[in-house]
Amino acid sequence: MRAMLRTAENYLDSIRARSLRVFYRGERMESVVDHPVAWPAANCVAEVYRAALAPETAAMMSTTVGHERVNVSNILWRSREDLIARVKWERMIGRMTGRGALRSPGLDAINALAVITDRCDRERGTAYHPRLLAFVDRIQRDDLAVSGAMTDVRGDRSKRPATQADPDLFLRVVRRENGGVVLRGAKAHQTSAVHCHEHLVLPMTCAADEGAWAIACAVPSDAPGVTHIYARQPSDSRRAERSPLDAGLPDFGGCESLMVFDDVFVPDERVFLCGEAEYTQELVRLFGSFHRFCYGGCKVGIADVVIGAASLAARANGVRDRSAVESKLTEMVQLNETMYACGLAAALEGTETEAGTWIPDIALANVTKLNVTRFPFEIARLAADIAGGAMLTLPSQADLEHPELGPLVKKYMAGSPEVSAGDRMALFRLLEFLTHGAGAVYFLHESLHGAGAPEAMKILLRREVPLAPFEDAARRLMASG
Amino acid sequence: MRAMLRTAENYLDSIRARSLRVFYRGERMESVVDHPVAWPAANCVAEVYRAALAPETAAMMSTTVGHERVNVSNILWRSREDLIARVKWERMIGRMTGRGALRSPGLDAINALAVITDRCDRERGTAYHPRLLAFVDRIQRDDLAVSGAMTDVRGDRSKRPATQADPDLFLRVVRRENGGVVLRGAKAHQTSAVHCHEHLVLPMTCAADEGAWAIACAVPSDAPGVTHIYARQPSDSRRAERSPLDAGLPDFGGCESLMVFDDVFVPDERVFLCGEAEYTQELVRLFGSFHRFCYGGCKVGIADVVIGAASLAARANGVRDRSAVESKLTEMVQLNETMYACGLAAALEGTETEAGTWIPDIALANVTKLNVTRFPFEIARLAADIAGGAMLTLPSQADLEHPELGPLVKKYMAGSPEVSAGDRMALFRLLEFLTHGAGAVYFLHESLHGAGAPEAMKILLRREVPLAPFEDAARRLMASG
Amino acid sequence: MRAMLRTAENYLDSIRARSLRVFYRGERMESVVDHPVAWPAANCVAEVYRAALAPETAAMMSTTVGHERVNVSNILWRSREDLIARVKWERMIGRMTGRGALRSPGLDAINALAVITDRCDRERGTAYHPRLLAFVDRIQRDDLAVSGAMTDVRGDRSKRPATQADPDLFLRVVRRENGGVVLRGAKAHQTSAVHCHEHLVLPMTCAADEGAWAIACAVPSDAPGVTHIYARQPSDSRRAERSPLDAGLPDFGGCESLMVFDDVFVPDERVFLCGEAEYTQELVRLFGSFHRFCYGGCKVGIADVVIGAASLAARANGVRDRSAVESKLTEMVQLNETMYACGLAAALEGTETEAGTWIPDIALANVTKLNVTRFPFEIARLAADIAGGAMLTLPSQADLEHPELGPLVKKYMAGSPEVSAGDRMALFRLLEFLTHGAGAVYFLHESLHGAGAPEAMKILLRREVPLAPFEDAARRLMASG
Amino acid sequence: MRAMLRTAENYLDSIRARSLRVFYRGERMESVVDHPVAWPAANCVAEVYRAALAPETAAMMSTTVGHERVNVSNILWRSREDLIARVKWERMIGRMTGRGALRSPGLDAINALAVITDRCDRERGTAYHPRLLAFVDRIQRDDLAVSGAMTDVRGDRSKRPATQADPDLFLRVVRRENGGVVLRGAKAHQTSAVHCHEHLVLPMTCAADEGAWAIACAVPSDAPGVTHIYARQPSDSRRAERSPLDAGLPDFGGCESLMVFDDVFVPDERVFLCGEAEYTQELVRLFGSFHRFCYGGCKVGIADVVIGAASLAARANGVRDRSAVESKLTEMVQLNETMYACGLAAALEGTETEAGTWIPDIALANVTKLNVTRFPFEIARLAADIAGGAMLTLPSQADLEHPELGPLVKKYMAGSPEVSAGDRMALFRLLEFLTHGAGAVYFLHESLHGAGAPEAMKILLRREVPLAPFEDAARRLMASG
Repeated sequence: MRAMLRTAENYLDSIRARSLRVFYRGERMESVVDHPVAWPAANCVAEVYRAALAPETAAMMSTTVGHERVNVSNILWRSREDLIARVKWERMIGRMTGRGALRSPGLDAINALAVITDRCDRERGTAYHPRLLAFVDRIQRDDLAVSGAMTDVRGDRSKRPATQADPDLFLRVVRRENGGVVLRGAKAHQTSAVHCHEHLVLPMTCAADEGAWAIACAVPSDAPGVTHIYARQPSDSRRAERSPLDAGLPDFGGCESLMVFDDVFVPDERVFLCGEAEYTQELVRLFGSFHRFCYGGCKVGIADVVIGAASLAARANGVRDRSAVESKLTEMVQLNETMYACGLAAALEGTETEAGTWIPDIALANVTKLNVTRFPFEIARLAADIAGGAMLTLPSQADLEHPELGPLVKKYMAGSPEVSAGDRMALFRLLEFLTHGAGAVYFLHESLHGAGAPEAMKILLRREVPLAPFEDAARRLMASG
Repeated sequence: MRAMLRTAENYLDSIRARSLRVFYRGERMESVVDHPVAWPAANCVAEVYRAALAPETAAMMSTTVGHERVNVSNILWRSREDLIARVKWERMIGRMTGRGALRSPGLDAINALAVITDRCDRERGTAYHPRLLAFVDRIQRDDLAVSGAMTDVRGDRSKRPATQADPDLFLRVVRRENGGVVLRGAKAHQTSAVHCHEHLVLPMTCAADEGAWAIACAVPSDAPGVTHIYARQPSDSRRAERSPLDAGLPDFGGCESLMVFDDVFVPDERVFLCGEAEYTQELVRLFGSFHRFCYGGCKVGIADVVIGAASLAARANGVRDRSAVESKLTEMVQLNETMYACGLAAALEGTETEAGTWIPDIALANVTKLNVTRFPFEIARLAADIAGGAMLTLPSQADLEHPELGPLVKKYMAGSPEVSAGDRMALFRLLEFLTHGAGAVYFLHESLHGAGAPEAMKILLRREVPLAPFEDAARRLMASG
Repeated sequence: MRAMLRTAENYLDSIRARSLRVFYRGERMESVVDHPVAWPAANCVAEVYRAALAPETAAMMSTTVGHERVNVSNILWRSREDLIARVKWERMIGRMTGRGALRSPGLDAINALAVITDRCDRERGTAYHPRLLAFVDRIQRDDLAVSGAMTDVRGDRSKRPATQADPDLFLRVVRRENGGVVLRGAKAHQTSAVHCHEHLVLPMTCAADEGAWAIACAVPSDAPGVTHIYARQPSDSRRAERSPLDAGLPDFGGCESLMVFDDVFVPDERVFLCGEAEYTQELVRLFGSFHRFCYGGCKVGIADVVIGAASLAARANGVRDRSAVESKLTEMVQLNETMYACGLAAALEGTETEAGTWIPDIALANVTKLNVTRFPFEIARLAADIAGGAMLTLPSQADLEHPELGPLVKKYMAGSPEVSAGDRMALFRLLEFLTHGAGAVYFLHESLHGAGAPEAMKILLRREVPLAPFEDAARRLMASG
Repeated sequence: MRAMLRTAENYLDSIRARSLRVFYRGERMESVVDHPVAWPAANCVAEVYRAALAPETAAMMSTTVGHERVNVSNILWRSREDLIARVKWERMIGRMTGRGALRSPGLDAINALAVITDRCDRERGTAYHPRLLAFVDRIQRDDLAVSGAMTDVRGDRSKRPATQADPDLFLRVVRRENGGVVLRGAKAHQTSAVHCHEHLVLPMTCAADEGAWAIACAVPSDAPGVTHIYARQPSDSRRAERSPLDAGLPDFGGCESLMVFDDVFVPDERVFLCGEAEYTQELVRLFGSFHRFCYGGCKVGIADVVIGAASLAARANGVRDRSAVESKLTEMVQLNETMYACGLAAALEGTETEAGTWIPDIALANVTKLNVTRFPFEIARLAADIAGGAMLTLPSQADLEHPELGPLVKKYMAGSPEVSAGDRMALFRLLEFLTHGAGAVYFLHESLHGAGAPEAMKILLRREVPLAPFEDAARRLMASG
């Protein structure tokens, strides 16, 4: 093997070179790198490449596999330390970008498939595991960005795949042909998929008679038949206006797309599960839980930025040392470090699988995510409380730079003499972005629904934390009546 | 007196006829009625006119003063029933518009000034009260929309008016001339001010030696020297795109502006306080508290829409009858009705003033608002929880209507067969608007900071609810040690 | 009619004169007035008599019916003002006693029966309503204390009356005889029943074929066949030790009993419903909701004492003016006034019934109670936070008074020089009583389960607040997709 | 060294053999082992001895030091694994006893002193560290139970040691004599001190001129001049009644005492700090934080019992499978596992000190404790919600066993047919004990105030988590204005 860590520029060029079919607001998006709306998200993926080479972050963002350095986004976890490190580098990237490490869904996907393909091969005599290992080898060698595409659009949520009015509402194999399978359907909310080289398609839970929907495979991003419908985000057009102040977080961001598979052919060597419906529930449990524990790093890093911006906003308002402000900042830290502690504990309590890989503690991974479905909302509310009303009633960058209005804006947006009016506005815009703008998509809404809705975690918790031992403990202690 | 309730069209024309100086994104906004970004806010004020004449709402939105019908937005409260009615019509308008009754700040201003001018005249021998009554008479007769402009920009929040680096950071009288005063400064976060005929300028709390800042007066919206810098709101440009689906709430909305007074002349007959600094704290207490108790109607009405939309979204997803959904909707109702109950109780416990007007209970008004600083955030979170991930990862209206993409969007955005894909998207967009778009400015951020930040309520509560009676009660009950 | 308000002493003597069958800790309790464990509860009922005659409280605690003064605990509500007044006098008594107005369940019972008997008579041609009015007349005239006995023991909660292993697990009519009915079963958690003259037996919800359990009637407290098993409360024996300091609240308290009906005969003129199962659900809805809205007064009054004691404890510790203490006290007030506001609003929104009586708004009554199931717990936690560790690790009164230990206790329990060590201990004991002692039974546990468990309120809220109007509002506002 | 693990019986005999001066309710307590009120606490300490020898727990509760097995309560932490193990065995003992591992304060004390004495010796040339190591060696060899006595009574909380009206309100050295020091003062809330062989006296934070209060030393439990005033707990006398059913948790419990030092002589070889006031703040920080992170195990174990008992109570009521019950149990688990995760993370992020020992992460230790000041209260409330009203209105054991009443109690306390009435009552009593009885002292109140009040954690968090890095992150990301 001859691994190579790509530079960020090399990565961006590689995406530019792909011919993707992406639509945004009814029009073809010519370049998902250079379109102003998409650029911050592309640059955020690029940052994960950059960080693996930058001297101050390389030790955290790359690791040795065999004799080569590999991005931590593309490894199979081989120890408890790999899991602990993951929570830490996720937080670091979250804090560096205000967005997160956008190659992580692929990381969760290869690790979930590693367990499942190994088990399936042993129990069913299939040969998926070696295929997966070869795929992992290739993405490490070529330092590819990989997405994890699990969430189907699901139509009527009260119905299973086979009973939907339209069978394509869960992605499925419509037929076999020429040593491969043909896929139809769509995957929803695909974070950064347009900026990845490969998509790892994963099934949702299927019943025994729903084998057609039990498909896991790798699809290159430029596979014929794939169309991305690029989602709108709050205030997305501020990117296109090219007014960085109004954009709030000018350099980084995220994007989601509805990814449509219109009879996409996948050759067998890229297929990792096909019809073995009995493994889908476990695959969902693992993939979901892997992604959930990482939020104990990723969202925490974003919250670090929110806390920092709130603290700076208090300075800009001249009230940083008030006890009410101190108390709110402490509450924010308390909530944030609690999420982090949960992620770390899920890693610490990780266990080795029969495939030789390591996985986090499933119960604690779900505990982590359940807190993440609540705490960022309170952190955001407290930040808005500290920042004050102006956070959402600001003049625009054009007003600030206007020859006639500009002086008025500077005069009346002044706060503490230590901060310029423009910087004060930039702080409010950053907070607006993260809590009410495009950033709220991932800081709040993805915290709620990413890797599954809260109810999914609760159902899992009921299974993963049996109460019988607690009942036994109570029974032993109570008097006999 | 010859009162007349204007029609909505008449109102809109009257605003069109005004020559205002308004800037938005660095450009002059020619019409605050017909500009696509401003129209929903103008229409929302118009709705308050419409409702006073529409048969099904006229009884609630107008009342008899003397022998004429007057809009409830322009009355001095003459009974406890007026206060109770106010909470109810605020809720009704909030529910009808998803925004609120935008003439309310003026209502709070005239009622606060009625108490203060009466007291000042009695104690200081001034003659403000008759002037105010004449002003009230005129706005009733002409059915004018009136804003209440209190919040100064305040610069360094740790400093009082007189100690700011720039004395204009609190609006002040810079000189007297020609039977009037000249104002300089700016009022921040001015809700709907561009859509009002008159602005009631009110001072913030001033110390004894800060008489120059102790100014209350009426300024017509087209007074020379007034400039409005129209604030950006999240996703505001979707209005300009004229894609109502993406806009979420196409017909109604709100707007805020930074209102700059660049040496504005106000004749004495429009002045209601000038230099009597000792009345400013009480004026702030009353104006703030009047606006706070109304949130127990206004924000509750918006939350009604959020709850309704969440319920419909659950239907569109096919899961309306799940116990987890039921439980979340019930929690939302519980939070919302609690806010409403607080507003009603503040009205019920209202008292008559020496001016012959009625005011709500100040402690309960602040209790109401403190709940409003928290509960809408949780209601919004629960709505997002119910709606699901797609709420923030939707394709655009252009995608839906695109000849090639449209069928794909319709196919994959389908939910329950009872709801069209387009209607499902419209529901998500409505929820996005109210919780992460321009609507969040008033449903969440204004709930937090409108009529004062949470700390202001807490400080007031400490004063308004003395603990001595509770201490006495405890002392009487405890054993003697 | 010749009404008479009894004195407290006359009341206590009237209870002493009754021959009741009460057991406590396996022994016959000879006097429910003079037994040291029961005395504080008896005295608390007596306080409701005292307050109706004491000059400073008579106006609130008595009202004119016909030409006579009647205790407010025994009236049919004839106006919205009666409902509002009820919330206020409940708070007053709660604050005066640290316990509450123990004649209230009977008040709720007569008002619920007034509505139901009127409806039943009109619809079914029965003659219950005149009987009830005669009963009300008598309890007014004789100023009797009346309990409301609804909660059956219910055995297996998943089963209805008719399907329980033992049919007596819901109280029922076992047979008719001699112009009356014979009852068997038990009512649980009967607050102050041993201190009442009359018990109003009410049914829980029955199905159409469960007429035997659909029995409402009045039973005198000394009816043959009635046995009370007096419940233990936390730290109940401190009463018997006669160490008032350790007791915490020496003068007032509450009590509960399991009330067993072992073939108790009730003559027909005391029967208000018998077999008409279709009215039981509405009876439960009304009785429960009436009791729920009163908690917005009663529990608020107790919380007043908790807040006052916490404030005094902070003084005794020398830290009353710390911002963290101020902030916690304000939070406690905020929670408490919110409950109060809900109770007031439920009264304000009350409506007249066909029986000519007034009832509170059912939805808001349940909103009140749902808040009461949560807020007192947080108020108690905050009080404990302020008081500090010593609140639960105190020496005893005997230690304080011990010749050798006493000086050490005084020396080391000293706090602020303004408060004696003994008074500081008494404060902690009062807080201990209310939050971890016998007082917690009613300040916390009854707040949770009194008048029904939280789930009962949630189910009612779902019915009482239909979401269709909210859905309509959302539908009107959303874009058409 | 010749270490020996004592048997529980040997431990109990060793305490019986001590001549202690303990008062309870004004009387000398002859034996802190055999007095019925004290026995459960003694037995709980004994359980920590038992568990170190019992085959199924020995591996967790003992460890090898040198060549001998030592109880984990008496070790200096030598690795991250020691810290992680500590959280786990604390949870195990908490779950086994419903109370906790009562030798832990001594464990925290020796580990805090290890760091401080090492630093002091290096910086000040003192010789405390070898003395401490000798002490640790002895308590390991003799398997002694050690208390950690830090909390002074503190009198007026707004004053420091030197400014109190009485200098003894913080324990101090009153004089030196005969190669030792003489102590006067009192330590408050001393958990299990009466059941320990040795007390480790530690100072609270002292200013530079308060050297007399800067004293750390070891005092044997039978040292002349030590008096314990044994605290009352809610329902403590139920122990003395010898009715195990009413007691709730018959076998285990805790106790606290006010420990008075009336001129107690301590020879120099037992002194570990004396006058070096500059180390006291760090000593408080370490001792407090060590104890705080252990609550992430200890209180979690008790909560396991509460959760188990609530689940059993739901079974006994016949409603275990209701979705509302499931949902509440899941919420309890979520809260509990979050506390556990925080404890684990504090251990995982532990670091090595210059003394060669390991300590937990201070910030995360305080994050753990802050959650512990809140979550057990909510867990207790949810348990009470599930259990139902009867939890606090139960008949007594004497009633259950009464020849005449017993059958009635059994008849009417019956629930699900799978659980006897007596067992159902025992479950309610266990929950009563843990949430409103003596158990609430440690499950709720100690969770709040043990190892410092919430404000102490918040102040520490402000210091331990500097916001500058978060501010830097925000500054790097925001647009330049």
